[in-house]
Amino acid sequence: MRENRIRSIWQDGGTAINGWLGIPSAFAAETMAHQGWDSLTVDLQHGVIGYQVAVTMLQAISTTPVVPLARVPWLDPAIIMKMLDAGAYGLICPMVNSRAEAEAFIGACRYPPEGFRSFGPIRALLYAGDDYGRHANQTVLTIAQIETAQAVDNIDEIVSVPGLDAVYIGPVDLGLSLGFEPKFDRTEPEVVAAIDKVLSAAGQHGVVAGIHNATVAYARQMIDKGFRFVTVQSDARLMAAAARDIVDGLRADRS
Amino acid sequence: MRENRIRSIWQDGGTAINGWLGIPSAFAAETMAHQGWDSLTVDLQHGVIGYQVAVTMLQAISTTPVVPLARVPWLDPAIIMKMLDAGAYGLICPMVNSRAEAEAFIGACRYPPEGFRSFGPIRALLYAGDDYGRHANQTVLTIAQIETAQAVDNIDEIVSVPGLDAVYIGPVDLGLSLGFEPKFDRTEPEVVAAIDKVLSAAGQHGVVAGIHNATVAYARQMIDKGFRFVTVQSDARLMAAAARDIVDGLRADRS
Amino acid sequence: MRENRIRSIWQDGGTAINGWLGIPSAFAAETMAHQGWDSLTVDLQHGVIGYQVAVTMLQAISTTPVVPLARVPWLDPAIIMKMLDAGAYGLICPMVNSRAEAEAFIGACRYPPEGFRSFGPIRALLYAGDDYGRHANQTVLTIAQIETAQAVDNIDEIVSVPGLDAVYIGPVDLGLSLGFEPKFDRTEPEVVAAIDKVLSAAGQHGVVAGIHNATVAYARQMIDKGFRFVTVQSDARLMAAAARDIVDGLRADRS
Amino acid sequence: MRENRIRSIWQDGGTAINGWLGIPSAFAAETMAHQGWDSLTVDLQHGVIGYQVAVTMLQAISTTPVVPLARVPWLDPAIIMKMLDAGAYGLICPMVNSRAEAEAFIGACRYPPEGFRSFGPIRALLYAGDDYGRHANQTVLTIAQIETAQAVDNIDEIVSVPGLDAVYIGPVDLGLSLGFEPKFDRTEPEVVAAIDKVLSAAGQHGVVAGIHNATVAYARQMIDKGFRFVTVQSDARLMAAAARDIVDGLRADRS
Amino acid sequence: MRENRIRSIWQDGGTAINGWLGIPSAFAAETMAHQGWDSLTVDLQHGVIGYQVAVTMLQAISTTPVVPLARVPWLDPAIIMKMLDAGAYGLICPMVNSRAEAEAFIGACRYPPEGFRSFGPIRALLYAGDDYGRHANQTVLTIAQIETAQAVDNIDEIVSVPGLDAVYIGPVDLGLSLGFEPKFDRTEPEVVAAIDKVLSAAGQHGVVAGIHNATVAYARQMIDKGFRFVTVQSDARLMAAAARDIVDGLRADRS
Amino acid sequence: MRENRIRSIWQDGGTAINGWLGIPSAFAAETMAHQGWDSLTVDLQHGVIGYQVAVTMLQAISTTPVVPLARVPWLDPAIIMKMLDAGAYGLICPMVNSRAEAEAFIGACRYPPEGFRSFGPIRALLYAGDDYGRHANQTVLTIAQIETAQAVDNIDEIVSVPGLDAVYIGPVDLGLSLGFEPKFDRTEPEVVAAIDKVLSAAGQHGVVAGIHNATVAYARQMIDKGFRFVTVQSDARLMAAAARDIVDGLRADRS
Repeated sequence: MRENRIRSIWQDGGTAINGWLGIPSAFAAETMAHQGWDSLTVDLQHGVIGYQVAVTMLQAISTTPVVPLARVPWLDPAIIMKMLDAGAYGLICPMVNSRAEAEAFIGACRYPPEGFRSFGPIRALLYAGDDYGRHANQTVLTIAQIETAQAVDNIDEIVSVPGLDAVYIGPVDLGLSLGFEPKFDRTEPEVVAAIDKVLSAAGQHGVVAGIHNATVAYARQMIDKGFRFVTVQSDARLMAAAARDIVDGLRADRS
Repeated sequence: MRENRIRSIWQDGGTAINGWLGIPSAFAAETMAHQGWDSLTVDLQHGVIGYQVAVTMLQAISTTPVVPLARVPWLDPAIIMKMLDAGAYGLICPMVNSRAEAEAFIGACRYPPEGFRSFGPIRALLYAGDDYGRHANQTVLTIAQIETAQAVDNIDEIVSVPGLDAVYIGPVDLGLSLGFEPKFDRTEPEVVAAIDKVLSAAGQHGVVAGIHNATVAYARQMIDKGFRFVTVQSDARLMAAAARDIVDGLRADRS
Repeated sequence: MRENRIRSIWQDGGTAINGWLGIPSAFAAETMAHQGWDSLTVDLQHGVIGYQVAVTMLQAISTTPVVPLARVPWLDPAIIMKMLDAGAYGLICPMVNSRAEAEAFIGACRYPPEGFRSFGPIRALLYAGDDYGRHANQTVLTIAQIETAQAVDNIDEIVSVPGLDAVYIGPVDLGLSLGFEPKFDRTEPEVVAAIDKVLSAAGQHGVVAGIHNATVAYARQMIDKGFRFVTVQSDARLMAAAARDIVDGLRADRS
Repeated sequence: MRENRIRSIWQDGGTAINGWLGIPSAFAAETMAHQGWDSLTVDLQHGVIGYQVAVTMLQAISTTPVVPLARVPWLDPAIIMKMLDAGAYGLICPMVNSRAEAEAFIGACRYPPEGFRSFGPIRALLYAGDDYGRHANQTVLTIAQIETAQAVDNIDEIVSVPGLDAVYIGPVDLGLSLGFEPKFDRTEPEVVAAIDKVLSAAGQHGVVAGIHNATVAYARQMIDKGFRFVTVQSDARLMAAAARDIVDGLRADRS
Repeated sequence: MRENRIRSIWQDGGTAINGWLGIPSAFAAETMAHQGWDSLTVDLQHGVIGYQVAVTMLQAISTTPVVPLARVPWLDPAIIMKMLDAGAYGLICPMVNSRAEAEAFIGACRYPPEGFRSFGPIRALLYAGDDYGRHANQTVLTIAQIETAQAVDNIDEIVSVPGLDAVYIGPVDLGLSLGFEPKFDRTEPEVVAAIDKVLSAAGQHGVVAGIHNATVAYARQMIDKGFRFVTVQSDARLMAAAARDIVDGLRADRS
Repeated sequence: MRENRIRSIWQDGGTAINGWLGIPSAFAAETMAHQGWDSLTVDLQHGVIGYQVAVTMLQAISTTPVVPLARVPWLDPAIIMKMLDAGAYGLICPMVNSRAEAEAFIGACRYPPEGFRSFGPIRALLYAGDDYGRHANQTVLTIAQIETAQAVDNIDEIVSVPGLDAVYIGPVDLGLSLGFEPKFDRTEPEVVAAIDKVLSAAGQHGVVAGIHNATVAYARQMIDKGFRFVTVQSDARLMAAAARDIVDGLRADRS
């Protein structure tokens, strides 16, 4: 079975640089896959992406060595299993708030006896190799998103669920849940404390911690803190900001 | 009929800032349409865009006041008329190298007696209004791309074809045709001379001149020269460069 | 944030005229959006419409001032949140039968602290404006469909759930649930009594009542009764009936 | 090979009732196919329809006995052959203005020795049967659209081209070409004279004449004149008009 | 209402030959529909197939007399009802492990009073006829997939749920659940015993038993045992194996 | 620039084994790409494949080392250049019947000064590398299809056009053109003579000869004759035949 390079990076003590895809286009995904990311996450939750186009995006990513990940829209076995069958090498599940939810997520990602995933990895066999069935449980990443006050409260029992590979902080929702404005790159002490608590709990259980960021500077701080899976921005946001810069530069010229 | 703001900008002596779309996605197009461009060009030639998705992109652009344009893949009445019927408010036609080609292009864009366009503006009626038929010939822009040595040689007869609104220099193909490497933002004297010749001929015939650029700095120079329709980069290039910057910023941190 | 004109109509004591979309086509949606409706509902339940094409339909509708709504296929946070992120300005949820279901529906539609919606309004920000996050909870409409005997029994507790903006009667399912044939424009006393009970309960709690109809005549009766959100037919039914009329007219000529 | 019922209707001296499809949707097409039309034409010229969705529309139509036709966007062997391979049982070609164009059209529709169509009827074999190759030249309809003054001038030589099955008058373009407003259901004497001339020439050469109409009343007149292939309106126009009627009916109620 | 030929085959004591579709393509589906299968199952679970393309596949199948079935991705009323509305004449539900799950599945497939299916069979009316509403509960097939040890343990209570038409053994998952490798055509005594137990329980309750197979030989054994709904391979597997044979045949020639 | 392995095979004196894709599906293409072919040809002529889905198929193929080729629907610069921009590493052009047509084909495939291809290899840069512009003319394959009596008559002047890499015999059309039934694996002496003439002329000009076949046995004969690019069947035909075998095998069991 093809190795999961994100897992390898983590085993080597490194940090994985993850890109984020919200544009429903295999060409945009392939373009992103040539920019040096370690992994790319096809976002079926807040991205404008449903199942069918997501598969073509996984295909586009796998024209390169970049590891294809996906965020599912919700904790639902149907889409979890479909994305894994389609060859995602790891899934981010939003709003995992309790041990029970973490177990349900992992159960849907793992074949028996570790879980209840149904067998039929139709595209995963092509991407990963004929021995996918034997190694998938040890290869595919399970990443639970921690983004509510409730999840922070339950963080110890969440990270102690067997089979959980990583937690991923959603700082916008987490801050919102704690009573702050929706934004990235949190500096409010209460939110920072929550982030630190998650990081610490994960570390104690050998679970990797990741976080979504708006700037390289903040992401660097997070890496320094110990986060080993960092995302900065997304395809659409990067494109929009760069376009705005061009327009502003040209408009400045005209005044 | 809805006014064509690019035409209005030109009538006021202004310069139109044009964005470029090569990603086949209505969501990417809508995102771009919120960044301040005067017009956006759906590129059916070198973009990864066929007819069907192009229509959804025109729809996405027309959720905003940005003027929807398209570049057709070739001088072919079928796609020219289909894109106009779909509501494009102007077309860029590649590789217009002679008076005959300019006439064929304009003929396909204009209803009789000015041309031979077939009547059936199925979406254009929705976008432009019920009186589209009466005003389309005076509203829709015809933009001939000048991008070969042959076209430069024939520039006077091209710009003198009645009904031609603008010429648009393709600096990559133009340079290639003149024996240089394919790239934007030309400084080779031979290519600059060709560009200047096109600009001058257009000016003499009351035809607007436009050009595609790689940088704001070069585009500013072109505006200063007299170009009144400038494009910088494209959706995919902007996204890729911004993504590369993020990755480089994060990688720098890790070494 | 862009105002929700349906909410404004209701605040002014008016009745909103809603159109219904079951054809999976952005062009059909845009055509419908030019016929004078106050709102159009993209039907992901009984329409032949999945998520991805639904987004292009919302885009098509938002080329006009018509308010884009959607009916989700079921009470499921995944699709509820995805449709809101895609810019729907209101959601109809089918088969809301109890207080708990109404609360679950509203919770998925509202950001904390009113609910548990996850933040990431990727297209809604484009459609509604940058301040979407601050005003979405007060702007987006929550419409619970009342269409079973159980829901009628529980109507008082359903309409008293905080944050519920409207109820929408599904007369076909409601009649079926009460033991009658599946059809619109109900006149069976038992069904009429149920409809009246829902209308009355809604009125007592300041919740708007709406209903789906087959004819203008019946819809007028409903408006007279106090319904302030009425739908008549759907895109496909209107097209089919009009086509049948043409064919019948021509066939009559041939015999 | 499956019979072509339009051809059979004509052989029996009857008139074929044709519906028109401009909405790019297989579901809309299937809905239309249940309304009693003899044939349905997938319009790739002025409809919002490219090749890929057109194929699904042909499939939808062939769930019923309705004969699937297509109008190609232009006289181009590529799309002509692709639509025939996809199972269209007849093609309407726009803007056939001369004998040479009629010959080019028919040549692209017929296998050698009658023409130069390339063999590969990938879906037509499924729809028509394994003996498609032997009978296609005698089964598939070639319909040349007559819609310019030039075509009317050349009508005798056009209708005398061997293999031409029918001519189809485009009254909007024809009137426009003759100096009138673009509209259907022509009553201007010059346009009526042109229509009559086409009808007469077709009749003399055993070629069927057809025409596109806006109303049943006008279509009946055309049938009485001798037209044996009549279309009234289109899917999108029928839907829009019916929707407008509903809205007007409801708005009347509110004032 | 159009008859369900699978039900008729069973009533006549016959065995239905079912094909399996995992390629998301209406053309591939139509091609398969011409190969002699009694039914074809559009697999939304392990196939690379989401809702929207599944509908076009149902349309493609219904150009022929082959009965269109679907496997839903999970026990979820949303997709169950959408596939039935789209005209599926039977549904296979994966991982039905208990009486409660069987009841939930059947409830979602049946209109009141037998179940809680919502009424709106938008395409089913076209495919089946205007009287769909009256006969759907007796026509549409409910097929529960038995593929875990738990389901085998609970088989008697599952097959005794009113309205269940058939059980369908998933031998890959069933074997995996019992501790064996994931594969078809089981010969392990424990798995064979489980299969026999399911077959026996089904027979006692008048429920049809079906099974998925890898080879004709094994399928024949199953038919001999009493299975009356057998599938062999899938579209993609058949294509891949045949392609491999060609390549091997040609490679052999080159060495 | 990524090497073109087909060119390398030919340079080493080998024969390339080519597969054929007519199903419009990236998943079907990726499945085929894992079966051992040297190249796969996306058939936009007789396959049910338009531009947009063709791009996703090229992406799917390039998840593997298989060389992605395409057959364009006709000799048209628009689609030729679009497919090359999309990353096709070689194009088959149908119905090349004369020196002028061969020159037009090659001109559209080559950048100046060898041809008139416009520069904008948007996806080809991703697939092939940043130096695509410098090496494309020497890397991308031009393959002219010889499939009419006229082409055979003109074969010497066709194969002597500079820049032509290969000819590809279409035996179905060739036989049809010579007065025989449309089929593969020709044995009629006249057709065999024509095939031999093409092979001989190609060999004399250093042009590779290829041919499409129905069986491995016939393809072997062609390889023995000197053909170095052979195709057998297509995705859809292989799938259909294998399905038919399964059904026949099971039906045999039931009688």
